[in-house]
Amino acid sequence: MDFLSLFLTDFVKQLQSPTLGFLIGGMIIAALGSELVIPESICSIIVFMLLTKIGLTGGIAIRNSTLTEMVLPILFAAVVGILIVFIARYTLAKMPKVKTVDAIATGGLFGAVSGSTMAAALTLLEEQKMPYEAWAGALYPFMDIPALVTAIVVANIYLNKKKNRVASVSTTQESFNKQSIAAGDYSDQPNYPSNRQEYLSQQKGDTDNRVKIWPIIKESLQGPALSAMLLGLALGIFTRPESVYKGFYDPAFRGLLSILMLVMGMEAWSRLGELRKVAQWYVVYSVVAPFIHGLIAFGLGMIAHYTMNFSMGGVVVLAVIASSSSDISGPPTLRAGIPSANPSAYIGASTAIGTPVAIGICIPFFIGLAQALGRA
Amino acid sequence: MDFLSLFLTDFVKQLQSPTLGFLIGGMIIAALGSELVIPESICSIIVFMLLTKIGLTGGIAIRNSTLTEMVLPILFAAVVGILIVFIARYTLAKMPKVKTVDAIATGGLFGAVSGSTMAAALTLLEEQKMPYEAWAGALYPFMDIPALVTAIVVANIYLNKKKNRVASVSTTQESFNKQSIAAGDYSDQPNYPSNRQEYLSQQKGDTDNRVKIWPIIKESLQGPALSAMLLGLALGIFTRPESVYKGFYDPAFRGLLSILMLVMGMEAWSRLGELRKVAQWYVVYSVVAPFIHGLIAFGLGMIAHYTMNFSMGGVVVLAVIASSSSDISGPPTLRAGIPSANPSAYIGASTAIGTPVAIGICIPFFIGLAQALGRA
Amino acid sequence: MDFLSLFLTDFVKQLQSPTLGFLIGGMIIAALGSELVIPESICSIIVFMLLTKIGLTGGIAIRNSTLTEMVLPILFAAVVGILIVFIARYTLAKMPKVKTVDAIATGGLFGAVSGSTMAAALTLLEEQKMPYEAWAGALYPFMDIPALVTAIVVANIYLNKKKNRVASVSTTQESFNKQSIAAGDYSDQPNYPSNRQEYLSQQKGDTDNRVKIWPIIKESLQGPALSAMLLGLALGIFTRPESVYKGFYDPAFRGLLSILMLVMGMEAWSRLGELRKVAQWYVVYSVVAPFIHGLIAFGLGMIAHYTMNFSMGGVVVLAVIASSSSDISGPPTLRAGIPSANPSAYIGASTAIGTPVAIGICIPFFIGLAQALGRA
Repeated sequence: MDFLSLFLTDFVKQLQSPTLGFLIGGMIIAALGSELVIPESICSIIVFMLLTKIGLTGGIAIRNSTLTEMVLPILFAAVVGILIVFIARYTLAKMPKVKTVDAIATGGLFGAVSGSTMAAALTLLEEQKMPYEAWAGALYPFMDIPALVTAIVVANIYLNKKKNRVASVSTTQESFNKQSIAAGDYSDQPNYPSNRQEYLSQQKGDTDNRVKIWPIIKESLQGPALSAMLLGLALGIFTRPESVYKGFYDPAFRGLLSILMLVMGMEAWSRLGELRKVAQWYVVYSVVAPFIHGLIAFGLGMIAHYTMNFSMGGVVVLAVIASSSSDISGPPTLRAGIPSANPSAYIGASTAIGTPVAIGICIPFFIGLAQALGRA
Repeated sequence: MDFLSLFLTDFVKQLQSPTLGFLIGGMIIAALGSELVIPESICSIIVFMLLTKIGLTGGIAIRNSTLTEMVLPILFAAVVGILIVFIARYTLAKMPKVKTVDAIATGGLFGAVSGSTMAAALTLLEEQKMPYEAWAGALYPFMDIPALVTAIVVANIYLNKKKNRVASVSTTQESFNKQSIAAGDYSDQPNYPSNRQEYLSQQKGDTDNRVKIWPIIKESLQGPALSAMLLGLALGIFTRPESVYKGFYDPAFRGLLSILMLVMGMEAWSRLGELRKVAQWYVVYSVVAPFIHGLIAFGLGMIAHYTMNFSMGGVVVLAVIASSSSDISGPPTLRAGIPSANPSAYIGASTAIGTPVAIGICIPFFIGLAQALGRA
Repeated sequence: MDFLSLFLTDFVKQLQSPTLGFLIGGMIIAALGSELVIPESICSIIVFMLLTKIGLTGGIAIRNSTLTEMVLPILFAAVVGILIVFIARYTLAKMPKVKTVDAIATGGLFGAVSGSTMAAALTLLEEQKMPYEAWAGALYPFMDIPALVTAIVVANIYLNKKKNRVASVSTTQESFNKQSIAAGDYSDQPNYPSNRQEYLSQQKGDTDNRVKIWPIIKESLQGPALSAMLLGLALGIFTRPESVYKGFYDPAFRGLLSILMLVMGMEAWSRLGELRKVAQWYVVYSVVAPFIHGLIAFGLGMIAHYTMNFSMGGVVVLAVIASSSSDISGPPTLRAGIPSANPSAYIGASTAIGTPVAIGICIPFFIGLAQALGRA
């Protein structure tokens, strides 16, 4: 009972954080029909600055730290990213009215990482004066990329198997028609990125499409969020950016994050409608999955805590990036890689429910858990 | 004589404030044909940040203060807002070549409040080290909304009376034609907001249109400026935003304001041409009205000063928001509520003359007056 | 040998500056195909803030300094600006496959000044704790405008002479055709600014077009970069902007510059392709010219150093603005003034090679030179 009451006190205390306040405020003013709009260009530059800052922090930290302590957390990050896709494949995909490719794509998005959710977690850890490794933000790509690659590979293996089965019982012509219906021909999303071809090494007359992994990794790395973070990382390692870091990127971080939280709250509210178009199991999944994913990562993080002295703050970061679902770089990569999946399903589930749950509930939950464990 | 010389010294000293400098600089570079443009999206985010900051200040202050001291200033703010509309109705509207609805709409805009003018006043008060209640910015909506509601109600009562008179001497067909001419059918503003219908409960076959007040209040509250301010107010009251306030919103305030002042100066210059299209009485009104409105509010504020210990800085804030005329949320609300009024008249009068007079002359004037009274 | 080793140490040390790091980082991520985009509106406001800050610094400095010490550096700035155009006229223009008007326009752009290059130089001087006159940034227009005016005048004199020669050996009809081919009729740049007419006082039936100088100066001063700087200068001289300067423009300077350097790196990479369309002599010119121009200015600056006690940091600023080539206000002015010149030639040479060379190599080179001279 003592543990539970400690946990509850810590949990409630964090709900007054301005970071969460702006998120909830955004949902409320959107619900009340406010005409407030934060311009698109402002959101872009905020995301750039937040991720450059996280990268710079990581880069400066890596320059001054031993790389061996990073091995286990990086490995766990990748394991969690891959595992999340398989969880979706064997739970969400089995539900009635849920298409298998849509479920795999959703799993990919929930395995991928949200830079803004991570930024919120780092800010709350600082508000709670809970120390974490400065390089913890650099775990981001090690979970993000494996999740996206796994989702695209698994989805394409599934689609090929299905196509082969269909092909064996019908003529090529019929197979083509059936497959495009079975896989869901969403003609209302006409602009599939043209690099779809790049991902599949199509050999004429052969139904065995092999998925190329490198283009998926490359596209993830080229996305605006990861580009900014890796740029910051490289600048942190190879130059001496301390002056611009302390005078600009670091002090602006919290304030810019507050604006982004507001935007995410408004966005979450406006996307709620999209969820009505898809099966209700997506709602259940996007409420429950952030906790399951976070708890798995939290457990693995505790192993690193006891064996490698990984800080409790670092464990929370690992858990939160597992809870989070990608909002910027994930969706376009998935659209290109699994064009037959329905974006309303995976983007709706992630933006409207997954992200608010991850930021508003999972972050305070895992910080509270870590604090209670630390004191117990 | 001593009082006058004190006042003049104080007045002149403030003209060197960078806030006023940027306003005048904006007018000068626009007059010189500069191609400098501050992008629209930057102006939006600046307005958001300034009003969120004013809201946060107010919210944090309200959390720590007794509400009773706010009652009288709030009441006076509402009284002044309503009074300003009636002043325009019985002065400006009586002038030759001035249409009554245009005059009422202009009164509504001058009764409504400009967030940037208020921000400039708060900055100048700080530069002059003149204390004011931290919740003073929260007076904004209590003057803004009553003014807009009053203007729309008064204009529609006037239009209905007129229509009835016309209807009694002519057939319905003719009445329709005549009214649309009499009320000014400005076909060059084709995009009247579609919520015009919402404001008027039109009953077929009955010329007695009743004006619904709630939709006007709702639209005012949903405007981007008031939304941001109320969001800040709520976050200031219900969360603990001190960290993000002190680290971001507060230090950026003056600098962002300087950019917005520049934009308002350029905007004022470019709108001057519009005033040539309307009767010259608008020029007279927009020079004189900010002083009259400010002096009325200053007088009422002094009552609160002597009875409730309302600070002299607070009296200045009340006077300045009365002097100011709305630039962001007011115009669209008026267009929707009084579609037959000519926007060139009310926007030209407010942006080209009213706002520069309020910021550049009335703010130093009322601060000087308060300082001279304080010392005399 | 001692001098050379001192110089090399100083040179290498500066390559770790975050300012240069962001420039090189921008080139690298563009080369790697990153999808990162810094929105146009953000770039505009950054340029505005940087140049307003430089202007404010200069204005505050001028308010507190004797004007006589500025005379010689200003004179040298103008001399260098004019000289650079003639250097291009008698070197680059003489190369095979290089059109004379293109070469003159390129000289004009390299003579004009880049505000961002200057901002980078001021930042690196501060990082190296090397003092310079606070008004040094105000040298900008005194080199920029003479260079642009000279280029446009020289180009038009050349075009008129050529036209007369052609006219004397052919009919008017033929002359017209030949001239438009000789001068390069770049029909792929259809939107020549309409103020072309303003620059030339065309007299019908007379081929002697005289170039009006005042409209060129006026257009330079009205450009967004110079407008912002002159506004800052005026506000620095006539108002007391210290509060907004210390609280906003100064602390944000380095951080905003880092974002702009990133953009310039990305821009340089993406413009490289344009250079392939023009003669290779442009590449040679844009690598060599920044050094030649900078060394000439450095030499003149040393005269001011020994005679008028002009600081070594000031000498570096003079050398760097001579090395730099205009990126914002120069190109549109040249397009209007020399419409027959090929923008691919001058913009490609300047943005893709000239600017990275000036920022990444010339700034560290001249700082290193000044430091080595100071110690030697």
